Amino acid sequence: MDTKIVLDTLWVLLGAMLVFFMNLGFALVESGFARSKNAVNILSKNFIVFAVSSMGYLLLGWGLMFGDGNGFIGTSGLWFVGGADNSPAVGDAYQGVYSAIAWTGVPLWAKFFFQLVFCGTAATIVSGAVAERIKYLAFILFSFFLTLLIYPAVGHWIWGGGFLAGLGMWDFAGSSVVHSTGGWAALAGILVLGPRFGKYGPGKRINPIPGHSLPLATIGAFVLWLGWFGFNPGSTMAADPGAIAHILVTTNTAGIMGLLVATGAAWLLLGKPDLGMSINGLLAGLVAITAGCAFVSVPSSIIIGAAAGLLVVLAVVFFDRARIDDPVGALSVHLVNGVFGTLAVGLFAQDGITGVATGNGLFFGGGFRLLGAQALGVVTVGGFVFAASLLVWFLLQKTMGIRVNLKEEIQGLDIGEHGNVAYPEFLIHKPSYHVANGHGHGGGAAGGGR
Amino acid sequence: MDTKIVLDTLWVLLGAMLVFFMNLGFALVESGFARSKNAVNILSKNFIVFAVSSMGYLLLGWGLMFGDGNGFIGTSGLWFVGGADNSPAVGDAYQGVYSAIAWTGVPLWAKFFFQLVFCGTAATIVSGAVAERIKYLAFILFSFFLTLLIYPAVGHWIWGGGFLAGLGMWDFAGSSVVHSTGGWAALAGILVLGPRFGKYGPGKRINPIPGHSLPLATIGAFVLWLGWFGFNPGSTMAADPGAIAHILVTTNTAGIMGLLVATGAAWLLLGKPDLGMSINGLLAGLVAITAGCAFVSVPSSIIIGAAAGLLVVLAVVFFDRARIDDPVGALSVHLVNGVFGTLAVGLFAQDGITGVATGNGLFFGGGFRLLGAQALGVVTVGGFVFAASLLVWFLLQKTMGIRVNLKEEIQGLDIGEHGNVAYPEFLIHKPSYHVANGHGHGGGAAGGGR
Amino acid sequence: MDTKIVLDTLWVLLGAMLVFFMNLGFALVESGFARSKNAVNILSKNFIVFAVSSMGYLLLGWGLMFGDGNGFIGTSGLWFVGGADNSPAVGDAYQGVYSAIAWTGVPLWAKFFFQLVFCGTAATIVSGAVAERIKYLAFILFSFFLTLLIYPAVGHWIWGGGFLAGLGMWDFAGSSVVHSTGGWAALAGILVLGPRFGKYGPGKRINPIPGHSLPLATIGAFVLWLGWFGFNPGSTMAADPGAIAHILVTTNTAGIMGLLVATGAAWLLLGKPDLGMSINGLLAGLVAITAGCAFVSVPSSIIIGAAAGLLVVLAVVFFDRARIDDPVGALSVHLVNGVFGTLAVGLFAQDGITGVATGNGLFFGGGFRLLGAQALGVVTVGGFVFAASLLVWFLLQKTMGIRVNLKEEIQGLDIGEHGNVAYPEFLIHKPSYHVANGHGHGGGAAGGGR
Repeated sequence: MDTKIVLDTLWVLLGAMLVFFMNLGFALVESGFARSKNAVNILSKNFIVFAVSSMGYLLLGWGLMFGDGNGFIGTSGLWFVGGADNSPAVGDAYQGVYSAIAWTGVPLWAKFFFQLVFCGTAATIVSGAVAERIKYLAFILFSFFLTLLIYPAVGHWIWGGGFLAGLGMWDFAGSSVVHSTGGWAALAGILVLGPRFGKYGPGKRINPIPGHSLPLATIGAFVLWLGWFGFNPGSTMAADPGAIAHILVTTNTAGIMGLLVATGAAWLLLGKPDLGMSINGLLAGLVAITAGCAFVSVPSSIIIGAAAGLLVVLAVVFFDRARIDDPVGALSVHLVNGVFGTLAVGLFAQDGITGVATGNGLFFGGGFRLLGAQALGVVTVGGFVFAASLLVWFLLQKTMGIRVNLKEEIQGLDIGEHGNVAYPEFLIHKPSYHVANGHGHGGGAAGGGR
Repeated sequence: MDTKIVLDTLWVLLGAMLVFFMNLGFALVESGFARSKNAVNILSKNFIVFAVSSMGYLLLGWGLMFGDGNGFIGTSGLWFVGGADNSPAVGDAYQGVYSAIAWTGVPLWAKFFFQLVFCGTAATIVSGAVAERIKYLAFILFSFFLTLLIYPAVGHWIWGGGFLAGLGMWDFAGSSVVHSTGGWAALAGILVLGPRFGKYGPGKRINPIPGHSLPLATIGAFVLWLGWFGFNPGSTMAADPGAIAHILVTTNTAGIMGLLVATGAAWLLLGKPDLGMSINGLLAGLVAITAGCAFVSVPSSIIIGAAAGLLVVLAVVFFDRARIDDPVGALSVHLVNGVFGTLAVGLFAQDGITGVATGNGLFFGGGFRLLGAQALGVVTVGGFVFAASLLVWFLLQKTMGIRVNLKEEIQGLDIGEHGNVAYPEFLIHKPSYHVANGHGHGGGAAGGGR
Repeated sequence: MDTKIVLDTLWVLLGAMLVFFMNLGFALVESGFARSKNAVNILSKNFIVFAVSSMGYLLLGWGLMFGDGNGFIGTSGLWFVGGADNSPAVGDAYQGVYSAIAWTGVPLWAKFFFQLVFCGTAATIVSGAVAERIKYLAFILFSFFLTLLIYPAVGHWIWGGGFLAGLGMWDFAGSSVVHSTGGWAALAGILVLGPRFGKYGPGKRINPIPGHSLPLATIGAFVLWLGWFGFNPGSTMAADPGAIAHILVTTNTAGIMGLLVATGAAWLLLGKPDLGMSINGLLAGLVAITAGCAFVSVPSSIIIGAAAGLLVVLAVVFFDRARIDDPVGALSVHLVNGVFGTLAVGLFAQDGITGVATGNGLFFGGGFRLLGAQALGVVTVGGFVFAASLLVWFLLQKTMGIRVNLKEEIQGLDIGEHGNVAYPEFLIHKPSYHVANGHGHGGGAAGGGR
């Protein structure tokens, strides 16, 4: 047994488990930031979404993403589970059956599971953005298409040896592949769904809708923070000590700067250090460093994280004023900072800092070449994912409908969709809306009592 | 230092930590599925049970299970902690002191701790089934006997070189050793205890008793899902990359199929996609694949998981109609699917799929030989554990009593047993029972508002 | 690539992640043991404290602790992040830049992150003790000074090759460096702050103030338990199988004994098996074994844990009677048992039990030499940390004030400090104080309804 294969496999599987656990983190951040009458629905969505993603990725997604093919899509290894009967765990476990990417030297199923948990993450991002008004089944079906077709295509272009990789675009752990993909799909969903009842109006009023449990949201944030230590350092897919230690520290440093700056910005701009903003600031910093964690220095990660922390606060205010109703701030975190993080590689990359020959970014003498490739990637991914998602959402809307009816929305999706409530014994008062002063950062974070 | 020993130890300890963490998962699933007036009691039970198990296993259990002896019980290595003074960590750490099983090549304390967390899991399974009416001390004492004597005996027969292993029975990670053992012990406890006040009647009525917090239960389910990635792949007790990757994927695949099918079945049969059923469906799939995760292919794991998802829904309905009151569905998950998973090895095993020479199951040309050995194991384990547990429960009932009095049960065990309440500041309404329509799957999952 | 470096790095980073996750554990234990009106404040403090610690430790702390210098402080490697531009991940990643301690053979950033999470733990300990009356900003600033200056000094003396290490004091994983340091800083804060409104009086009355959520506290306790398996075994900073397996078992055994004994003591002394006491008993056992986990046998860990379980119950009663108001029992857990655990090394150490030449403790024929060194360390650390912390608290009090005003304290810090509430939809009754009978162990654990 080759020791390096064992070491790499242990590292990849540890990383995969941590990323898997992020499903819990998203479930709690999203349900904590929503109202209790919709908590069962959100938890149900986040509980089933990894199962749906696993199916989609097992059936088609994996082959489309990593199968041999052309620059746009993989065409081998489809219906993977069937071909797996000649079990990759036996005999030739250590030689890949796909050659489109440099083979990582871990068993096929290890790589499959590692890639699956990233795919699942993209789908969970959508969940929060469309919360509190989407039909359970519509979300399930959208997630299936996203992980079956849309995510794998983007993944193939950047991680599967496709045309964006060929053009010199770099996205180490998925600011674009995972986070902006989830973000664009979410934006499409929000636009088709429209805002929640009571969120806007009368007139120019923007009504904050506080989340029902900041403890749940905070547990979720810590779990996501932990999970990111698998997400980014794990993406080496090899137990390279220098690289994984470097990535761990750039990841954490960007996250804490996002947290600190967003907290400070909320304090200065909104008057109080809002915990919801602190949480989204952390996540913004983590998303923003995800593309470049292996390509930038620790001091650069400080700057990237700080910028993300500011960006997320401004984005929450922007989306609210634009009447794009995102109950948990998913667009501000994943879309805005997924894009920013991808571009930041073009600014801050230092060639070979962990051994990868990215070339230098603009701030380190590399000129606009890398930045250009990153920008091209951002536009291409955004255009494709947004258009494809819009199509899927429209098809779902025309066939089965994607939004619950108004009565069910007001009563809460838990009863309508699940015949259940999250806390059947607790006395809950109906929060009254239309009480805020029209200002306020609103739905992006779980502000209470304003 | 032999690199293989280091690698195997890291893998075993990572697995052990994940399985340890399942204590949290069980605590939350069980307390979430119960009423708030009993939440402190359930949390207290699940918090102390690993401590009690650790004592029982350290004193006698480990030696009975893995000590040299005969086919029925180990007779060396008893009172383990005393013999450990000639510390196994020093000097001869790497040569085992017991030879009844093939030595795994990790330090003795590493193997001890790994086995301990499995033992602890069996005890936690009982906790949920007897919830909301058992005395705190009675549960503690039962857990002590279970981990001191009953579990180790079963473990010796199957994992400690005992007679069931000799007869060709295979249980890779414990569908029988852990889950059905916990399940049979729970069934005995339920029969001695009787149903909760208000669960059945008047007449043929079956009254659903919704759990108090689906968010707690969902957190618990995710933690258990994560923990299973230690439970099954860790049971290689060696860092064999191909095997652990294969097992990880069969485990996850069976789990997600259980989740999907149980959700669908609940939707079709009960009218709504019940989150409690989704959770128990996941757990059922995971339990069912536990015996065979290393012996069956990924496509087979899909079938096993799907069958488990259907079985758990039917079992919940069955136990409710049989007036066997299991507040959290522990019997449907652990007993029914522990038995099914053990038998499934006899159906789906493919000889040597991860290098273990199990022979083929019925569906792969192996005839009835393996299925027969599995069935014999199921019957033997069931007969012994059920009878021994019944004896212990009866002895406890005759001496100290095992059920709280009716007044305490109605008021809640938290005040009676612990002088405490879980949420002292929150206003809680008393749920009224006798309101349901007599139908419904009832207590197996946390259905609310029906 | 040297395989040993890879193995050691994987182990160190796994340990670091587990210790990082303890931030969640502390956040939940502390917020669960406090009232809901202060939950957002506590969660906010525990959420931001690791970010603040990361800054303090990155800027100065790391260099002061591990930089070359003299016996009292490191003087190189300050402003670490700047020097890191010549990235330690590239090229010379595997040769240390500091020589004050024996180099561990992992990349510099790996060691940095591992040490950072320990530093962060010391700061989180303070959070609970000063809860429910401290200003958010005052806590942030104190944490910054603690991790920038105070903790690194102590760390240098014991772990950075300083004078206490030279005198033969041993603290394997930080009973003194982390836990008593956090404890002394907390004691200073409590004395400057004074007790919460309503905790004492009228007359000699001691009023229990129950925590608002035992489920949150229990989740936190399990997370901390898991985290300790990184805290102690990880502190080998090398993947030595025999040592880490031994340490894992001594750690768990002391923890469970603390849990069992504290539960029993509460049952006997206070009449009921209080879950809050069980939780603090576990933590006490874990703190007490932290210094000696690698130096004592498993039987000794049983005794140490049992003593810790008794000590914590007595300490909670003592601090309450002394009117030192510690809402979560942080002093009883971390200070008292941090001191006890450090001294216990002088009693129970067995030379070389995991390969470290500590010499024998008093009970194993080593006489008073080791015990004397441990006692000297306890006194020195206590004197310095208490005095330095008192100075910082006083400076903060004189400049910005550290305590919220009475109106805000009564209303809850969540609204005053954060403009937010934790559970905006739930109906919460105002608990009335001055109802207890003057007895009771009070604030140390979350007793309800007495």
